Amino acid sequence: MTPERKERLLAVLNKRQPELTVVLENVADPHNISAVMRTCDAVGIQDIYILNTRIPLHKKWSAKASSSAEKWLTVHQFTDAKECFTEIRKRFNKVYTTHLASDSKDLYELNLTESVALVFGNEHSGVTEEILQYTDGNFIIPQVGIIKSLNISVACAVSLYEAFRQKHLAGHYDTPRLQGEQLQKLTSEWELNIDQ
Amino acid sequence: MTPERKERLLAVLNKRQPELTVVLENVADPHNISAVMRTCDAVGIQDIYILNTRIPLHKKWSAKASSSAEKWLTVHQFTDAKECFTEIRKRFNKVYTTHLASDSKDLYELNLTESVALVFGNEHSGVTEEILQYTDGNFIIPQVGIIKSLNISVACAVSLYEAFRQKHLAGHYDTPRLQGEQLQKLTSEWELNIDQ
Repeated sequence: MTPERKERLLAVLNKRQPELTVVLENVADPHNISAVMRTCDAVGIQDIYILNTRIPLHKKWSAKASSSAEKWLTVHQFTDAKECFTEIRKRFNKVYTTHLASDSKDLYELNLTESVALVFGNEHSGVTEEILQYTDGNFIIPQVGIIKSLNISVACAVSLYEAFRQKHLAGHYDTPRLQGEQLQKLTSEWELNIDQ
Repeated sequence: MTPERKERLLAVLNKRQPELTVVLENVADPHNISAVMRTCDAVGIQDIYILNTRIPLHKKWSAKASSSAEKWLTVHQFTDAKECFTEIRKRFNKVYTTHLASDSKDLYELNLTESVALVFGNEHSGVTEEILQYTDGNFIIPQVGIIKSLNISVACAVSLYEAFRQKHLAGHYDTPRLQGEQLQKLTSEWELNIDQ
């Protein structure tokens, strides 16, 4: 690997944001998952959780794809909700869902500079009731139109870029957030990615 | 039409934002156009411009679709760039493209509370050089990842929701922005939509 390439990888790793993640619960369409992954990469999210309790695990995500954002993300797959959120709670302080409820907060009221996981549910049925017990609250993306439904990849992008905006203002992109062992492990993995 | 339905339509019309629009230049995939339209509706955009100089006009958008965001938008279609931007300049003060250039501004530096049109180009080739003469400048959505490319419907949603956020803070959703003849015309059209 050339020094320039290594430098570029390190530059991206130094913008990664270990305090932010996305959980996709029973999201069915691989195109949506793929679009979400691109947005995760774009705002510096490294870890993404895919929880499938009602639909089969996506085969496509079980093996490394050769040319996609996924190659540069750490994808955690679960089929058990409790197990999934136990893992998430070890690393993130807050968990918010996009469940529509009367007590939902507005996206723009959330403090996304905290350590936070954002959960997006199935395209048709949204997040399941089952997982609400593991979460801290709901948020909605404000809408003033007739249709009142945004595609999941759009909803996720709007949420993640609001996080980007807040974190950027808070200086989270100014100094590396990944440290020590985690940074070393990813650097090794990424070097292998490039060589492949 | 019931009074409740009429009230609901009026409530949405009273959130419409005549100072904000989107121009899709040679965007090829109808799914992308459809997703953009849903986002437009969601943030209160009424008018959208579709300019096709290099690909045929989308047949799907030539006739009214029965159940989509498009039904609630005013779609302007053009095949001539000059004609298109002459119309746009009559109604909007600023025109920004998502063209990648060294002088591009950051999305978050733009004042989107102004009267503004945002231009998004073809999925593969971006906006054409030809239209840059009609615009005031370029902007980019900041990205810190490896991939450096966002789907157009995602890029558009991130931009429009930043406009939403700014306009919301500026009070643009607090009082009706559509007035007089324009409001009356749309009210009549929407009543017909509901009856169909």
